[in-house]
Amino acid sequence: MFVNTMPRYEILSAEAVEVLDRGWRRIVSEIGVQFAKPEAVELFRAAGQRVDGEVVYLDPEFVLAQVAKAPREFDVQARNPANTVHIGGDHMVFGGVYGCPFVREGEVRRDATLDDFRRLTMLAQSFGQLDTAGGVICEPNDAPLDSRHLDMIYALATLTDKFYMGNVVSGPNAADTIAMTSILFGGRDKIEQTPATISLINCNSPLRWDDRMLDAQFEYCAASQPVVLTPYLLMGAMSPVTIPAALVQQLAEALSGIALAQLIRPGCPVIFGSFLSNIDMQSGSPSFGTPESAIGLLCTGQLARHFGLPFRTGGGLTASQTADAQAAYESLMTLLPTFLAGTNFVMHAAGWLEGGLVSCFEKFIIDIELLRMLRVEFTPLEIDEGSLAFGAHEEVGHGGHFLGAAHTMERFRDCFYRPLLSSTANYERWLKLGGKDTTARASDICAKTLADYQPPPLDDAIRAELGDYVSRRRAELGD
Amino acid sequence: MFVNTMPRYEILSAEAVEVLDRGWRRIVSEIGVQFAKPEAVELFRAAGQRVDGEVVYLDPEFVLAQVAKAPREFDVQARNPANTVHIGGDHMVFGGVYGCPFVREGEVRRDATLDDFRRLTMLAQSFGQLDTAGGVICEPNDAPLDSRHLDMIYALATLTDKFYMGNVVSGPNAADTIAMTSILFGGRDKIEQTPATISLINCNSPLRWDDRMLDAQFEYCAASQPVVLTPYLLMGAMSPVTIPAALVQQLAEALSGIALAQLIRPGCPVIFGSFLSNIDMQSGSPSFGTPESAIGLLCTGQLARHFGLPFRTGGGLTASQTADAQAAYESLMTLLPTFLAGTNFVMHAAGWLEGGLVSCFEKFIIDIELLRMLRVEFTPLEIDEGSLAFGAHEEVGHGGHFLGAAHTMERFRDCFYRPLLSSTANYERWLKLGGKDTTARASDICAKTLADYQPPPLDDAIRAELGDYVSRRRAELGD
Repeated sequence: MFVNTMPRYEILSAEAVEVLDRGWRRIVSEIGVQFAKPEAVELFRAAGQRVDGEVVYLDPEFVLAQVAKAPREFDVQARNPANTVHIGGDHMVFGGVYGCPFVREGEVRRDATLDDFRRLTMLAQSFGQLDTAGGVICEPNDAPLDSRHLDMIYALATLTDKFYMGNVVSGPNAADTIAMTSILFGGRDKIEQTPATISLINCNSPLRWDDRMLDAQFEYCAASQPVVLTPYLLMGAMSPVTIPAALVQQLAEALSGIALAQLIRPGCPVIFGSFLSNIDMQSGSPSFGTPESAIGLLCTGQLARHFGLPFRTGGGLTASQTADAQAAYESLMTLLPTFLAGTNFVMHAAGWLEGGLVSCFEKFIIDIELLRMLRVEFTPLEIDEGSLAFGAHEEVGHGGHFLGAAHTMERFRDCFYRPLLSSTANYERWLKLGGKDTTARASDICAKTLADYQPPPLDDAIRAELGDYVSRRRAELGD
Repeated sequence: MFVNTMPRYEILSAEAVEVLDRGWRRIVSEIGVQFAKPEAVELFRAAGQRVDGEVVYLDPEFVLAQVAKAPREFDVQARNPANTVHIGGDHMVFGGVYGCPFVREGEVRRDATLDDFRRLTMLAQSFGQLDTAGGVICEPNDAPLDSRHLDMIYALATLTDKFYMGNVVSGPNAADTIAMTSILFGGRDKIEQTPATISLINCNSPLRWDDRMLDAQFEYCAASQPVVLTPYLLMGAMSPVTIPAALVQQLAEALSGIALAQLIRPGCPVIFGSFLSNIDMQSGSPSFGTPESAIGLLCTGQLARHFGLPFRTGGGLTASQTADAQAAYESLMTLLPTFLAGTNFVMHAAGWLEGGLVSCFEKFIIDIELLRMLRVEFTPLEIDEGSLAFGAHEEVGHGGHFLGAAHTMERFRDCFYRPLLSSTANYERWLKLGGKDTTARASDICAKTLADYQPPPLDDAIRAELGDYVSRRRAELGD
């Protein structure tokens, strides 16, 4: 887990924050928010909010009172305690790509399979830059539809010893996640005490929370498992085309979802979610790594801090079809602001391609390199008299070189970032090594990492109990 | 020219700045700086500084008194007044790649030629993101060695109407640059009044200014043409391996060069230069786009502001051998901090590849895309009630979409960044368009840009006078 103690890059003035603050208040009170689940509406009604059908008109002060019940920071435990994470403050927690129906490996793009899911999970376990493999790392299209969430949770629980994200397709799927995680940790009380999953609850933006997502939210909040309440905003489609309007809508949606979480179980942990980019007004397709998304990201961090909430945004997002230059620059155009904003929880931090349609093995390695670099870049400099190396100048003199200086010899092993993927080989040596571009080298690293993968130890009885649960539930679900 | 009114990202504490300030003072006074030109040493001696052979031991207060004579901001005029730039303050001025012996175009890497030089100059003229084509955009290896600077200046003066950088190979080359620029602007007095070139004076780090560079500096400073006094620091080779040591050395070198400039001609414009990266301690090769270089860049901006000097750093730097993912992420890993630091003058902003050995046509286009994106990203948000688009929410309602909303229709043409190079096409459409990766698309854009290139108008008499100058000087130089 990375702790980012560098300064935050904040670009909103106090006046701008005030304008945005007035904006969400007007939306929740005058336009209202739709909750497509009667139990949700009833909770708001019982708490004194005005209701019209599925639409709840929220008193902003009521929303803030609910938001204040959420913890500012909390732990999420992993079955290997060394991988337990802290959400909030200066901590940054990273997860792999999430939700892609396709995979890309080398020159082949195809339907994702359960084997892909397992291999991507193994990659996530292999790199310390990721705190979680994520949840639906790719859609295992060859696994039975109604029970594939069981296969995914089983893979995440057994192939990694990091925490994982819960399934949110339905209430029962969420209940299965909680049940299997309870097995893994020795009882539901253990995970209610310290949560062991995080789940992504997306808003059907604008201003509508759907029934199946809410069903899942009810399960997770009741079990005190954190949810990331995430407005899903592609400006121009799910929100107006201006960034301030998107920020205001994002506040209205996220804060209303967080208020509901606190009504379900006061004090349950939540994360202020943001997924904010724009559509390409020429093609109508989603754009990622855009200037607008970077600006939105920086503002999101500042606003989440304003409300005292841990927040999720960013990732290695790109619209590119292959793991090429565009994929790299769009991803970094999001990932660097992700660090500048001090984002607490980062989904899609490795492997995302083609607007989230594709989990790409080579892109996974490229993103790991970016995360490795950014962790070094966002580590504060130590500046003292010793670091000035005055003695080295006395040793080397004018026009000399420092390659053999004592100061260099003492530090050369770890003085600079050591790349995983990047090549500094001169042209002749690079040719001799095969003249492989970055994506080809990433493919090699991917294969080697998978070959070297060691499954983390797991108690046989727990593994058997998880397997039994999967078998029993699969039979019940008729798959 | 871009004006960056976004906040600066500063990472040095006041205490850290104090430690670094003590550091350069100790170096210039105790180790001294070597100036391999008797006239330079004599200027320092006459000004009361202690001298031992070529080494000058500088009183830090004397250095600061000289530095204070340099203008904080100044203009550099272009022959098309619309392209005149302002150096300093919030202004950011960008130039193309500089100094490469090779070019890469498609899959071919080869010796650069004068034709390459001309085509790269035409590219620079074609994109508003560049304020200058630069100087030695690539080394025209097929032009006669002693007079090729004349060919380069002639190309820069005629194929672009932006300002250009002066030749610094020798004093006579600098004099030729000044003479030809005087022809272009109607007399030396015209360019002494408002400078029309910027020239790069590199330090032979550590702590040595070489004779030929100093010869060029004397010519330029005497003509009041700004010089960029640039410590050339690859940590581990030309400086110690710790960033604070490199920063202190950079201050000692740049400030000593600036002090000399003010002795040559008090008040002459200068730019605090920085070229700061590290070597790969495994391969011994230079690394670019590293975390260390980004940190150094951010600190450099803060320190230059501390001394009230316009500064140069950053660019689209990479060690990658091709215009691939590494080339893209390393370049952005430098370019984004270049904007965060509010860099006043940015060399190598387009086309740099392979550690500066290669000027790459496709990379040129990739970098232009990055510059286009970053200009939008570093434009302050306008936040007011109107931008909140409350009416659009009233129109669209819960769970609807904004594609056809009035607020969208009014703004869809220019609400978002429009890419030059990036593709958001869906996979099927992308395949139909040829399945070209970013580098292949960049190649197409490059060809189209060159085909569409229109030479800027130039008075026939001036063109003829420039041509005559080149012919006469070439004959004198025996080429």
